[in-house]
Amino acid sequence: MARHFIIFVLIIFSINGYAQDPYRANRAQWLAQAQQLTPKFNETLKRPVNTVVLVKDAGAFQGWKAQPTDSLTAFYSGSFQKKKQVVLDFGEHITGYVSFSLKLLRGSSDAPTRFKLTFGEVPAELATPFDPYKGGLSRAWLQDEVVTVMDIPETVSIARRLSFRYVKIELMGSSQYFDFAVSDIQCKAVSSVSTKPAPLQASAASDIRAIDSVGLTTLKECMQTVYEDGPKRDRRLWIGDLYLESLANSYSFKNFDLTKRCLYLLAGLSGEKGFLIGTVFEKPEPHPQENQYLMDYAFLYNAALKEYLAATNDTETANDLWPVAKRQLDIIRNYLLPTGMMDYPRANKEWWLFFDWKDGLDREAALQGIAIYTLKQTYDLAKALHKEGELNDVPALIKKMSTAARKNLYDAKTGLVYSGSSKQVSYASQIWLTLSGALSKKESQQALLNVAKQKDALYPGGPYLYHYYVQALISAGLNAEAKATVTNYWGGMVKKGADTFWEVYDPKNEYLSPYGFFPVNSYCHAWSCTPVYFIRKYPEVFQE
Amino acid sequence: MARHFIIFVLIIFSINGYAQDPYRANRAQWLAQAQQLTPKFNETLKRPVNTVVLVKDAGAFQGWKAQPTDSLTAFYSGSFQKKKQVVLDFGEHITGYVSFSLKLLRGSSDAPTRFKLTFGEVPAELATPFDPYKGGLSRAWLQDEVVTVMDIPETVSIARRLSFRYVKIELMGSSQYFDFAVSDIQCKAVSSVSTKPAPLQASAASDIRAIDSVGLTTLKECMQTVYEDGPKRDRRLWIGDLYLESLANSYSFKNFDLTKRCLYLLAGLSGEKGFLIGTVFEKPEPHPQENQYLMDYAFLYNAALKEYLAATNDTETANDLWPVAKRQLDIIRNYLLPTGMMDYPRANKEWWLFFDWKDGLDREAALQGIAIYTLKQTYDLAKALHKEGELNDVPALIKKMSTAARKNLYDAKTGLVYSGSSKQVSYASQIWLTLSGALSKKESQQALLNVAKQKDALYPGGPYLYHYYVQALISAGLNAEAKATVTNYWGGMVKKGADTFWEVYDPKNEYLSPYGFFPVNSYCHAWSCTPVYFIRKYPEVFQE
Repeated sequence: MARHFIIFVLIIFSINGYAQDPYRANRAQWLAQAQQLTPKFNETLKRPVNTVVLVKDAGAFQGWKAQPTDSLTAFYSGSFQKKKQVVLDFGEHITGYVSFSLKLLRGSSDAPTRFKLTFGEVPAELATPFDPYKGGLSRAWLQDEVVTVMDIPETVSIARRLSFRYVKIELMGSSQYFDFAVSDIQCKAVSSVSTKPAPLQASAASDIRAIDSVGLTTLKECMQTVYEDGPKRDRRLWIGDLYLESLANSYSFKNFDLTKRCLYLLAGLSGEKGFLIGTVFEKPEPHPQENQYLMDYAFLYNAALKEYLAATNDTETANDLWPVAKRQLDIIRNYLLPTGMMDYPRANKEWWLFFDWKDGLDREAALQGIAIYTLKQTYDLAKALHKEGELNDVPALIKKMSTAARKNLYDAKTGLVYSGSSKQVSYASQIWLTLSGALSKKESQQALLNVAKQKDALYPGGPYLYHYYVQALISAGLNAEAKATVTNYWGGMVKKGADTFWEVYDPKNEYLSPYGFFPVNSYCHAWSCTPVYFIRKYPEVFQE
Repeated sequence: MARHFIIFVLIIFSINGYAQDPYRANRAQWLAQAQQLTPKFNETLKRPVNTVVLVKDAGAFQGWKAQPTDSLTAFYSGSFQKKKQVVLDFGEHITGYVSFSLKLLRGSSDAPTRFKLTFGEVPAELATPFDPYKGGLSRAWLQDEVVTVMDIPETVSIARRLSFRYVKIELMGSSQYFDFAVSDIQCKAVSSVSTKPAPLQASAASDIRAIDSVGLTTLKECMQTVYEDGPKRDRRLWIGDLYLESLANSYSFKNFDLTKRCLYLLAGLSGEKGFLIGTVFEKPEPHPQENQYLMDYAFLYNAALKEYLAATNDTETANDLWPVAKRQLDIIRNYLLPTGMMDYPRANKEWWLFFDWKDGLDREAALQGIAIYTLKQTYDLAKALHKEGELNDVPALIKKMSTAARKNLYDAKTGLVYSGSSKQVSYASQIWLTLSGALSKKESQQALLNVAKQKDALYPGGPYLYHYYVQALISAGLNAEAKATVTNYWGGMVKKGADTFWEVYDPKNEYLSPYGFFPVNSYCHAWSCTPVYFIRKYPEVFQE
């Protein structure tokens, strides 16, 4: 996910505000904790399996497939001066540091040699010209690097970390007076994962196994020094991704220290008023993205902390970070109208409300839903820490807001949730009122089944909201639908050749990009990894 | 100079040949000597003086001039996100390692940033698109580097050594969600020169001073771990360049250890039969360019060694390398016809004969001239080492070859030297028969004056042959013409804004390139530095 809007937030804290930084005493310690938990990398040396040729194929994902051609041995022994271009396939998605070696075949290298290396997670990335670049994000995310090699033999290292399966090498300049070959190319793959997850239940079908496996790779690739959203792009910690990754991690790699590190990092870098900032950077030193206040993500921190405690029983950390979770509830109190509804227009103006990449999505219902959900999650956390006394107003708040939600957003006659003045029907709205518990299980079932029948309903724009859709289906007892969603949606990516799950996937439009240029999409994206969590947490849903 | 022809030489040494490597016992020691003499760099930190704009100007060299615009302070404080492109002027020619720093002006760097840096020795280099590249040498000589910067603030170093006065920085990709400035750019300039030459005689005129100064800079920039031909291209040791640089060095920086190192390196890397190879490389370990046998350059080694001894009295080195000089004379013996003429057709087929970059030049006369010249230089060297007894045949050879030259190449009626079956009249032929001493001083004068009047005479293609032209004029006592040549030809470059003297300069065609693309020419080239030598060795020629 790349959310690059800069929202200048002016929130007046007349009632719930703090005169000064509420965590002044804690920040340095929290950041030191995060620092101390910086993981060691598990490093693995990877090499390509063969050369490929990119072939146009209307049936392939985004119109291009990679077809094996030569063995590595054949490629390494031939003149690259003559070949001039090659695509190598590493056979799997890799995140790490690439180097390649050049050897002389004839003569002396009497001049420098110029190469362009382009790294792609999917074949179409290598087949689509990057320039003139029309995308909305930085052109520099695209992984093409130009290298001058002064002398051959030489081993050249690409400084930036790369995320790819395929690499195209193009000869951009050379002397005709000597000949040379590429003699090796390798990648020092990095991940903070060093454990193997437990095997799936024996009853799991092959398609489920395949989805789980791709999900595990996706998660592993994103687990670096933080839970990154994507190792190609944006390579950083977002609360929303952290939440989903940590769920999947709890049921697979169980690297709980990474979750703990991220929770501390986000706390240490929260805004002055104590509200969490949606995304933070590690370099050159840890810092938040200025004013990147993202309300639904701030809420999900509480759910993540609750789940972390449940998975680890680490009450020390949960107690330490409790003031942060508690403080996020003030966001809800601050935007709550006397009607029991969240003040959506004001929230939408002052914060970034995400929920999904979907043009035209009205987020009123989803906001109301997630606010109630957050109150409940936080209250559960408080109970686990025996601190529910600090949230005395919360049970009444939940009740009031749930009633308001039903009254203002739900139509019992149609069995659907409507959002905003236009009475928009979307999956997002049904999902979040289901997850909030404001609807009964029966009503939730109806809402989720009904929305699927509405031709014009706004369906999820990507895997992130699909996660909550599956969660809602399971919580409404719609197990068959949950399984079908996983096998159709994530299974659809697998069928299209995904090695890792994609940031953006609309089965109806393979070229969809929130950034105006599909090659800049991330094709290994954390928020898409959650089939791992579903399949392993709810084996009964996914058996044959 | 870039001579990239690969000549496969098959020379049968029936008489003068060696059964095996004649230097087998010496090579390792010679190379170790060279290694031991590797100079320490004199490092200086350089920064730009201001920004410039490139302006089309028919009156400027190659049609472009650099016009000062902003101060560095102004540039460093402004947004580069907005500016997107800049040209910086370092105010002088520099060879070294560039780094630049970036600082944030607003926000966090939420995406990588992509830059293209193009380094130019002359303004037109930055104003002429490099692609699609049509030049004959490697495209990679052109100094444009593409850099991805993952996080800002950052200081980025360009790995390759650069040679430039101007640098263009272009923004090729960035995120609109933060702003940044270039906060510094610097170059660690390197040269093995650490001395200051003596001041010029007080009587020297300002144009002579200017030429001397540009020559000194040219020489200094080329003096690295060897005498390079050009710090931008080809960055390596050629015997022809070494000879001219060492002459200039003897009268200026007096870094005789560098000359000594180069003489040892060339000896250590000579061919198996003991003949010198025209050019050698230092990396990855010292090695010659295979089969790059260049006859006139092999000859000039002897002149260089003789001059080195004269300048230093280092008889130990001269004695040590004497077998190499002596051996080169066998090339002459091997190609000598009974007539006393060099067998030009066979030499031309089996070796590379250079003398000048000039299409269509017939090299018969020049070859005869340089052969005689080399016999004389080597005999002088032998005498200085009291080894003339080893060259008993040489005086007679000189006589025989001089007589043959006069008979076959010189026409006393026209007072001109003719070369080849087409009786070509060229400067090269007059020059080399003058330098050989085969013509009397009077005849030399006439030949040199007459050729200037011949409309169709092939004039020198570049500074390398202009050097020998000036030397010939001086040796013929044509001091005024020598001075005029220096002030017109080299002075012409100075008038056109040269900071360093160029590899290629034809006053009639500023775009001339032996490589089909003028920006790949070297604009700081060793063989052009010799006004330093002339002005300082012959002050009487250059006074007002």
